Amino acid sequence: MIETQNSDLPLRGDWLFPTDIRFGAGRVAEIGAICRKHGMARPLLVTDRGLAQLPIAQRVMDEMTEAGIHPTLFAEVQENPTDKNVVAGAEAYHAASADGVVALGGGSGLDCGKAVAALAGLGGSLSDLMWPNHEKTATRKGVPPIITIPTTAGTGAEVEIASVITDTTQRRKVGIWHPQMLSRTVIADPEMTLSLPRHLTAATAMDALIHNLEALCVPMYHPMADAMAIDGVARIGRWLPTVLDDPANIQGRANLLAASIAGATAFGKGLGAMHALSHAIGARIGGHHGLTNAILMPHVLDLNERAIRPALRAVASHLGLAGEPVASCRAWLANLAIRAEIPKSLQVIGVTPNHIPDLAEVALRDICATTNPVPLDLESLSTVLRAAID
Amino acid sequence: MIETQNSDLPLRGDWLFPTDIRFGAGRVAEIGAICRKHGMARPLLVTDRGLAQLPIAQRVMDEMTEAGIHPTLFAEVQENPTDKNVVAGAEAYHAASADGVVALGGGSGLDCGKAVAALAGLGGSLSDLMWPNHEKTATRKGVPPIITIPTTAGTGAEVEIASVITDTTQRRKVGIWHPQMLSRTVIADPEMTLSLPRHLTAATAMDALIHNLEALCVPMYHPMADAMAIDGVARIGRWLPTVLDDPANIQGRANLLAASIAGATAFGKGLGAMHALSHAIGARIGGHHGLTNAILMPHVLDLNERAIRPALRAVASHLGLAGEPVASCRAWLANLAIRAEIPKSLQVIGVTPNHIPDLAEVALRDICATTNPVPLDLESLSTVLRAAID
Repeated sequence: MIETQNSDLPLRGDWLFPTDIRFGAGRVAEIGAICRKHGMARPLLVTDRGLAQLPIAQRVMDEMTEAGIHPTLFAEVQENPTDKNVVAGAEAYHAASADGVVALGGGSGLDCGKAVAALAGLGGSLSDLMWPNHEKTATRKGVPPIITIPTTAGTGAEVEIASVITDTTQRRKVGIWHPQMLSRTVIADPEMTLSLPRHLTAATAMDALIHNLEALCVPMYHPMADAMAIDGVARIGRWLPTVLDDPANIQGRANLLAASIAGATAFGKGLGAMHALSHAIGARIGGHHGLTNAILMPHVLDLNERAIRPALRAVASHLGLAGEPVASCRAWLANLAIRAEIPKSLQVIGVTPNHIPDLAEVALRDICATTNPVPLDLESLSTVLRAAID
Repeated sequence: MIETQNSDLPLRGDWLFPTDIRFGAGRVAEIGAICRKHGMARPLLVTDRGLAQLPIAQRVMDEMTEAGIHPTLFAEVQENPTDKNVVAGAEAYHAASADGVVALGGGSGLDCGKAVAALAGLGGSLSDLMWPNHEKTATRKGVPPIITIPTTAGTGAEVEIASVITDTTQRRKVGIWHPQMLSRTVIADPEMTLSLPRHLTAATAMDALIHNLEALCVPMYHPMADAMAIDGVARIGRWLPTVLDDPANIQGRANLLAASIAGATAFGKGLGAMHALSHAIGARIGGHHGLTNAILMPHVLDLNERAIRPALRAVASHLGLAGEPVASCRAWLANLAIRAEIPKSLQVIGVTPNHIPDLAEVALRDICATTNPVPLDLESLSTVLRAAID
């Protein structure tokens, strides 16, 4: 058996796995029955503006309507969704007298939809639900049922209990959390991911890969999460090139979607510096979250390497790589990033050396900084950023 | 990447993972705080008579009392617990004006405790909760909070939503199921398994191994479950011999406990003929469930082999076994059973050739028969039983 953690780590952890997932091509057809199961007759369909124009959003609306469900569309969700989007969504929820939320999208639509349900159901201010205030509101009841439908194989927000929302006052990404924010049912239908453009297929798949990789590297004993994370990394490596060559390959799309769900399930363990920095960059500058993560990956691996050698060895063993396992694993990851056409520098996102002090400070206060395999400080985060801009 | 399923299988499945798990040595000390978290001031502690005499039951009682919690002990649970045990437990629950259940034990105490909570909270007849009647009662509310504390590393009942109870009228094991029967918090403390005698350590570990193995072999696309199941099989193979040699080895006990939880998490996919037959034998004749499973294992593998070659190859690859992978995996499993001193014949359980027609019929109607990798009939089940008695 391959150990994935340092042997001096205590054998303890707090474990949580997610929810009812309906996985498979064509299963979006079950949406009407699932709405009824959760007592939803008038759901608010939350998605982003771009997606609202595409046939897949129309298909979800049509499936619901044909099943006698009366959805209302709310599509005012931007990339890196904001507190304002959530407040507008909660208003739309009440205006429509809705009785549940169907969240459709990549991370933006899903995270916004879950937060809309929480705010609409609990009332009060969104800031009450923000980490670390969320503990005080955890016992409040009344979040309506949520159904999630991912349209990318990346975020895993469909199975994650929290949402990441940009607080426009603080210009930071913050976690919104409530125990009832977990999707009651996930419809994981790879057909919903078929129309994703090439560059987003690549960036979201790298995001999913990094969820698995950072979760695996979190120093907590959690054999179930680690096993699925190793499988998730390998599964993306196996199928991403196939899907890039043949975007309609449903087997490949399904395997990427499964691996993205594994990533978000595994990262109940936590994440690390890639995500801490990527959240900071998303809030201060913008850019695609998955792409930002992927550019940061090799530099954070440099930072963490002494602590994550068992994890990388486990991946190398699972992949059957020849040669020294840690180097082989890193070379394999680097090759996959090249195959996904990930740029080398954060300059494509608009990050410049002038941003470094601010970004390092914001990242250091991010929740993902707390579970990085090695302790972080302004110095080490700045070093990573400098290397990733060069 | 290693495929664990036949490539012609549709890429679809219904996925469910479990609950809040507090894993680690000494964590039973958190019981008081966890009771309070779930609003339990007067829990019913459900366990079996043998365990009630041991220091671990006393420790749980003491930890609760010191934390200001007022538990009442109910210890009238037999091996292969019956409907009568559950009814008596529900009466004890009401007599004590209890407000939740702490289920402590191996499979018997845990399954009985969960069923007691359901019957006490929902009222009516236990048969209303029995598969397949359970669908009608699924929308009823009122099951009090359940905390589970495993004392064996085998059953995984601590994370399973259903209970298996012997219906004394039908002389069959039946599933008791309600959506609120999932433990709110599992305390998975390997210290609670240290006093388990050698033969039970072996039999329960083989039960956990078989949960992982049968779940892996269920023909459903579920990469997360399969990854943790492969890890679970390997982890038990790595650590069971260590624990048999050194029963106080806490690292080994922890790894067996983690693998047993993985097994029960993975078997959300389903189980197979080992469990269908073992349930029949437990209800009609008795005997230890894990031991019965382990005796049946090689013969059910014979029956299923043509359908489970990818699964066995994946295990062999993960283990790094040399030689033809399916044969190597089977030899590895057989060696582990020898190491665990599993007898060759069901005669030790009291099964004779005369029992075969009745046992095959009961097994064929068991829910686990529906997910066996190859379709079952009276003939094939009888063949397995004959081979396992010889």
